Amino acid sequence: MKLYSYFRSSAAYRVRIALSIKGIEYETESKALLKGEHLTADYRSLNPQALIPSLETENAVLSQSLAILEYLEERYPSPPLLPKHPLARAQVRSMALAIACDIHPLDNLRVLNHLREVAKFGDDQINDWYRHWISEGFKGLEVQAQRHSSDRRYCFGDSVSLADVLLVPQMFNARRFNTNLAPFPTLVAITSHLESLPSFAAARPEVQPDAA
Amino acid sequence: MKLYSYFRSSAAYRVRIALSIKGIEYETESKALLKGEHLTADYRSLNPQALIPSLETENAVLSQSLAILEYLEERYPSPPLLPKHPLARAQVRSMALAIACDIHPLDNLRVLNHLREVAKFGDDQINDWYRHWISEGFKGLEVQAQRHSSDRRYCFGDSVSLADVLLVPQMFNARRFNTNLAPFPTLVAITSHLESLPSFAAARPEVQPDAA
Repeated sequence: MKLYSYFRSSAAYRVRIALSIKGIEYETESKALLKGEHLTADYRSLNPQALIPSLETENAVLSQSLAILEYLEERYPSPPLLPKHPLARAQVRSMALAIACDIHPLDNLRVLNHLREVAKFGDDQINDWYRHWISEGFKGLEVQAQRHSSDRRYCFGDSVSLADVLLVPQMFNARRFNTNLAPFPTLVAITSHLESLPSFAAARPEVQPDAA
Repeated sequence: MKLYSYFRSSAAYRVRIALSIKGIEYETESKALLKGEHLTADYRSLNPQALIPSLETENAVLSQSLAILEYLEERYPSPPLLPKHPLARAQVRSMALAIACDIHPLDNLRVLNHLREVAKFGDDQINDWYRHWISEGFKGLEVQAQRHSSDRRYCFGDSVSLADVLLVPQMFNARRFNTNLAPFPTLVAITSHLESLPSFAAARPEVQPDAA
């Protein structure tokens, strides 16, 4: 199994966490986003969306981090990243998607580059934009975590789930851009616990082979 | 079962299509996005993310359209919206997520409003922004559909899937904003077939009870 990754891509970080939790061995091929290494014709032939990550497995190349995570869950069900009951699974997926759809895509490198180009955003405006969508998204997520977390160690119940896999990389980005986290004590507490787990620690950007 | 919907919300449109395909009866409660009816304290208590749609079922309220679609698939498996094999499921989900993560959130009403406010975008710039992300996302999706569609009637293989459920509402938006669709003949052909099916037709914005 090969993961096309970049140490600071938060979508790749999600997949690294899941691979680590499930104890799956894999090799890493780095694509440096800042150098545009994901935009070559070769990489596009593997992943037509030209985004990171991709996972090469079973003679196929899979794209979109959430599709990869669901694949890993189906193919390597233990330990599980989704609860058993459909309603509970929907609550976990809702929290994961709040990040995957309504925070992260708005703060993607290609979007920031586009804002610099068409809206002539400078660094301050980029940083405000970045933090704005994290704060907006975390507002709802904080309430969901308060409702569904058993004891502020995991987003849902008392075990790890896809929501946790998405939260930690998003919180990494939130800190990197100095987002005010005071309104989100539950999310901060959960992240702090998750980051203490070896499976999450192994997936951190700074310990990846391609870390700058 | 009750769907909190808005006739022109493309995330609600996705859920309406799935409910229609699976033959599930439901009632609609409209939340007019342009009037901010989704931003009230009452609605936030149901859906802390304050987004449309939500689905009320089994004494719970579910949010995030893809989480709702996966729930419907698990609870009402027939007819299926995902193939059986994990690799095939991942390819379908990848196409669905290309729309759900990398096109639609960038063109959401709240994002357009924010651009008007902080970047002082006028109508022309809003329209360019809107079309830009559709074109960017459809480029990769066109290649994936060419690879995976059997005969340009469905995105994947020869039966309906989640990718189709996401494509039709996104194409509706693409047309509404006069996006150039010439580079995407496969997506256009698939949409044209899907729109001819009664289950998709019943979910169209213009036939909803709250259509303007």
